[in-house]
Amino acid sequence: MAWDTDRTKQLLLDAATEEFSRYGLAGARIDRIASTAGVNKERIYQYFGKKDDLFGIVLARQLAAVMEQVAIEGDGVAAVVSYAGRVFDYQVQHPELARLTFWEGLERDEPTALATRAAGAASKVERLRHALPTLSVADARELLTTILTLCDGWQVLATMDRIYTGTADRTAKRNAERKAAVLTAVEALTRALI
Amino acid sequence: MAWDTDRTKQLLLDAATEEFSRYGLAGARIDRIASTAGVNKERIYQYFGKKDDLFGIVLARQLAAVMEQVAIEGDGVAAVVSYAGRVFDYQVQHPELARLTFWEGLERDEPTALATRAAGAASKVERLRHALPTLSVADARELLTTILTLCDGWQVLATMDRIYTGTADRTAKRNAERKAAVLTAVEALTRALI
Repeated sequence: MAWDTDRTKQLLLDAATEEFSRYGLAGARIDRIASTAGVNKERIYQYFGKKDDLFGIVLARQLAAVMEQVAIEGDGVAAVVSYAGRVFDYQVQHPELARLTFWEGLERDEPTALATRAAGAASKVERLRHALPTLSVADARELLTTILTLCDGWQVLATMDRIYTGTADRTAKRNAERKAAVLTAVEALTRALI
Repeated sequence: MAWDTDRTKQLLLDAATEEFSRYGLAGARIDRIASTAGVNKERIYQYFGKKDDLFGIVLARQLAAVMEQVAIEGDGVAAVVSYAGRVFDYQVQHPELARLTFWEGLERDEPTALATRAAGAASKVERLRHALPTLSVADARELLTTILTLCDGWQVLATMDRIYTGTADRTAKRNAERKAAVLTAVEALTRALI
């Protein structure tokens, strides 16, 4: 019985992640999530509350996954560049994270799961300052915001890249070129800040 | 008669800009645009075609305005930093431009007005290489993509800033701090590329 509940919740969360990533908060349809998961839609309200709450749960789950899988390791400028490279690669593998982040930015005034995410952000700031002890808290925040904006933005602004480079598809080659450009920016900025 | 038509079109485009900026492409309602403009909605179809076409016209108009008002002027690293600073300030004054850009990225596979925008992008790349003659075309494109992603992203990711800094509002002080951080990144990247 508990297994069934867990499995049903998992199916619903996976379907909700796909739905919110594709259509955003306003555009997502609870009916479609239920239908994709093959579960009665009343279960969604029962387990997760209303659509807005479900969006928050989905985004918080994605953010917990990236926090767990991509950490700032080691010391010095190389640690920051390595971190940015792994964030970039993670985003390429999981484009739904950036899409959910931008949907939230466009559609909500308040971030979801603020307290948990603020704690996660503070721990990243602390870890970054451990790697670069001369970095101020303010500069650490700006550096992390810059890294995340560049990596997240790359997933969402394929249309802009089409305009600049004429590349319609996200080929491995184009991803590698842009990754190199982002890491050049991150390294140069980090050196300027310390 | 012509004056009436021009005025009606202007009212509709202003209302459409507000509507698309706020709700995106799927979320925008033609009824609401007509009602805000105080114009019969049949006029919208008559003048601009369907909703998708109207979105393209609105975004192209915003992009033409920024191209006209914010140009790369002068030479050297200082010219790039000055350009990025003016793009940042323009975006703060006109947040609808970044919002439309990200809605497009999230909601459309193909950019609107591709030929015109590609020509505008090519002319910016050329102008940037005039300011920095040793910069390759590829690096010029990456530098412009970096500047635009950072400036556009700042308008849309207020939720992320809330998480990092706790700042709920976009105060003049917070805008100035982030502008300084973006310009530090742009200057450091430009120096690394030349």
